Amino acid sequence: MNEVSVIGRGITSFGKKEDTLKTMLAKASREALSDAGSPKIDAVFVGNFSSGPLANQEILGSLLTNELGLGDIPSVKMEGACASGGIAFRNAYQLVKAGEYETVLVAGGEKMTSEDTNTVTNVINYAMDKETNEGVAGLTFPGFFGVLANRYMHEYGAEKKHLAKVALKNRMYAKENPIAHFKKSTTIEEIMEARSITDPLGLLDCSPISDGAAAVVIQKGKQGVEVLSSGQATGTPVMQEVGDLLHIPATKTSAERAYEAAGLGPEEIDVVELHDCFSMTEIVATEELGFFEKGKGWEAIANGWTAHEGVVPINTSGGLLSKGHPIGATGIAQIIQIVDQLNGRACNQVKGAKIGLTQNLGGTGAYSVVHLLKKRGG
Amino acid sequence: MNEVSVIGRGITSFGKKEDTLKTMLAKASREALSDAGSPKIDAVFVGNFSSGPLANQEILGSLLTNELGLGDIPSVKMEGACASGGIAFRNAYQLVKAGEYETVLVAGGEKMTSEDTNTVTNVINYAMDKETNEGVAGLTFPGFFGVLANRYMHEYGAEKKHLAKVALKNRMYAKENPIAHFKKSTTIEEIMEARSITDPLGLLDCSPISDGAAAVVIQKGKQGVEVLSSGQATGTPVMQEVGDLLHIPATKTSAERAYEAAGLGPEEIDVVELHDCFSMTEIVATEELGFFEKGKGWEAIANGWTAHEGVVPINTSGGLLSKGHPIGATGIAQIIQIVDQLNGRACNQVKGAKIGLTQNLGGTGAYSVVHLLKKRGG
Repeated sequence: MNEVSVIGRGITSFGKKEDTLKTMLAKASREALSDAGSPKIDAVFVGNFSSGPLANQEILGSLLTNELGLGDIPSVKMEGACASGGIAFRNAYQLVKAGEYETVLVAGGEKMTSEDTNTVTNVINYAMDKETNEGVAGLTFPGFFGVLANRYMHEYGAEKKHLAKVALKNRMYAKENPIAHFKKSTTIEEIMEARSITDPLGLLDCSPISDGAAAVVIQKGKQGVEVLSSGQATGTPVMQEVGDLLHIPATKTSAERAYEAAGLGPEEIDVVELHDCFSMTEIVATEELGFFEKGKGWEAIANGWTAHEGVVPINTSGGLLSKGHPIGATGIAQIIQIVDQLNGRACNQVKGAKIGLTQNLGGTGAYSVVHLLKKRGG
Repeated sequence: MNEVSVIGRGITSFGKKEDTLKTMLAKASREALSDAGSPKIDAVFVGNFSSGPLANQEILGSLLTNELGLGDIPSVKMEGACASGGIAFRNAYQLVKAGEYETVLVAGGEKMTSEDTNTVTNVINYAMDKETNEGVAGLTFPGFFGVLANRYMHEYGAEKKHLAKVALKNRMYAKENPIAHFKKSTTIEEIMEARSITDPLGLLDCSPISDGAAAVVIQKGKQGVEVLSSGQATGTPVMQEVGDLLHIPATKTSAERAYEAAGLGPEEIDVVELHDCFSMTEIVATEELGFFEKGKGWEAIANGWTAHEGVVPINTSGGLLSKGHPIGATGIAQIIQIVDQLNGRACNQVKGAKIGLTQNLGGTGAYSVVHLLKKRGG
């Protein structure tokens, strides 16, 4: 089998930015290309959610390829809600593994702060099925994960303070991440007492609206961090069709597929970036990915097992909650943090990390994509 | 090398439709799945341009997969302006050829008539680079191809009546196509005298705003119509960077790549569906694809060489001009017409057609993708 490696990475700072989407994508990409030693690129894949309404711009594949002067190579944008970046990476990985392309630039980005919060919230809701009852009723993403949090707390005895501990952990890590959206210190009390968004989730339990872009170069061969496997799954985008609110089947299935393809299990993972769009989502994901038993994820955060000296360090980048969540960039930014960890040059470096996992969720479970990466010679 | 085949096809009628985008995608897909004998599907790829602003809906991959009850298989939407459908088909083809998936459903669709014409025109302009002078100045797609037509006529001696002949030919074919948007007879005079959109292009020189969807099932193996090759190229999306208005380099390069991969040349093609977003675009494309010398495409239409008894029958479906152009559906609809031709069951059937070509353009040349298909045992 062909080995595929990440040979370069680049990322803009996340937050409210003056740069346009094209400029951010180009900045991250130039850094990634330079980091990779400026190889010849055979194709450009862009992950982006909804640049039409958010930035009045489509054709990001062509736009970026031309801006970088990469010539007439194939290019495309891929969309899978908040998993757009991870899905673009997956397809590029599959095509490099297959030998269709030798070297591919995968970039992801989103421009979100040009519009007011109501508009952005409305556009994010395009990641639900707008024809269903809940689309009509106006259910939002915080609404969905708030319901899930209430159910989880009722069922397993978790409390609001455990959610807050996730937010606090990720903020602590973001403080050390130069590109993070939020780097100000906070406290459990501040998180617990923050303005309620949807009970029990307060403002600091929710990922912010951010601008930003990230890019990696992947190549067939044995230089760089190895991509071991990719797993993707689709789930229902409609709450009324969810059999059990305590599970996110796409997350579980995508992880199982990635583990199986790599011949690995959760116990072999040294460092993780997972999709903490809300504090609650991180806890459920730690269970679905197999790190902790169902209903025990809150005990893991309570006991510090997901901290960077813990059993399985999670979101050492600061996660979506504090690093920020420019939607299309997120899946690529996760890959970058794991690559940096495996290369021994990450913020909040995990000592001796050899195998890392990324999990990128789209919608309320409409998509999930998991990648396993490995340090060479590790 | 693995052989890849189209084993099923489905398409809605094109025009102003009551159905939502999801419903249209599902209708076309169910017909394709049934036509393929209801095989197990391993992934769903959707081609769509800009469903965010046009239909207030993203996550088309997940939405369609769930609507069809296809389970938790991977799904994604791909975007490349008006070439979105062709690009989705290309990526699915590459991944089936590589053995990553055995059987893939590729659907494409667009809902365009819910919005007023000004809004749709504005959204279509998201397929230009909005940051450039021409984005700011408000150049539109008819504007671009109108300038190209003027230059072409000046340089090569073509006249407005030759553009009209393209529109008339494609309308004649659409009359026989049950799914076509426009089936009413017309005349050269009516086309020549139609309301001017951008001189020299009149209303009937321009493809309409249509709703619709199309889908195919592709599979590894020797049943069905063989996909011989795929070629894709990126070009500049900005008129001010176009070196020579008379050429569309992405069209030429994408064709060269497809010909080379298949070991074939233009002289071996029996039937063609190409991207006639405007009558002028068809003439230029016949040159870029190698069927006629540069500057001679207008003589070919004048002489009937592109009619279905001619040298190289072009757009026997009615083309974008009269079949209609629901953006994301177009690339898949082109594949369907060629598959039908090679299966001997097309409208405007070309006798003994064995090898067909599709060409799907995005933007003013930002993307082009070409596929070659072959009748088995032919």
